[in-house]
Amino acid sequence: MEHREETTTLISGEKVSGTNVYNTAGDSLGEVHDVMIDKMSGRVAYAVMSFGGFLGMGQKYHPLPWSSLTYDADRGGYVVNLSREQLEGAPVFAEDDQPRWNREYEQGIHDYYGVAPYWGGALPR
Amino acid sequence: MEHREETTTLISGEKVSGTNVYNTAGDSLGEVHDVMIDKMSGRVAYAVMSFGGFLGMGQKYHPLPWSSLTYDADRGGYVVNLSREQLEGAPVFAEDDQPRWNREYEQGIHDYYGVAPYWGGALPR
Repeated sequence: MEHREETTTLISGEKVSGTNVYNTAGDSLGEVHDVMIDKMSGRVAYAVMSFGGFLGMGQKYHPLPWSSLTYDADRGGYVVNLSREQLEGAPVFAEDDQPRWNREYEQGIHDYYGVAPYWGGALPR
Repeated sequence: MEHREETTTLISGEKVSGTNVYNTAGDSLGEVHDVMIDKMSGRVAYAVMSFGGFLGMGQKYHPLPWSSLTYDADRGGYVVNLSREQLEGAPVFAEDDQPRWNREYEQGIHDYYGVAPYWGGALPR
């Protein structure tokens, strides 16, 4: 450990990456691959959850609004209120099929997860 | 690149790590080693800047309030308004001498850099 990665109130970006993501039923959905930070506010906007694939090949990524995640200390991972079936219809992208990450795309993410956009845009439809 | 690391408004945690930090005079001060995220608000509280050392040995770390950094697209790095001399007196820690990261320690960081604490604490003294 090169520097203290977690305190009562803080957690490092490196430590967030690799943390498991579960749903409320306890199913393991994937793990946090990276976080996307809003440059203007310095707020973490999304956790990019990776799942599937083999040795990094064929992995897919779900962008999850940071505000849709809660940390569960007992499980040692983040919990999102989403069944596996619901996750199948959620915004997803592959390594070679990048989204455009514009406001329309982002609004779709927030609509899907039913959480207010971090930029103060329209509430989920 | 496993997923799009930077957009107009967003940047990934992995991409922030490794970004150079300069002062306003253009001196290179170090590079971002990691970010520290406030669990409650999801806001990036600090960039932990590494400097010195050799092959990762003997490196030292300066926690910089995220709000003290501005991104300079021309230099391709973050800029903090601090001379090298000022940096010598700034909060710093070594791998084997971790700070406690409590509010008192954090207040000292914000006092030093003259930026308001992210948790809404006392303004810099």
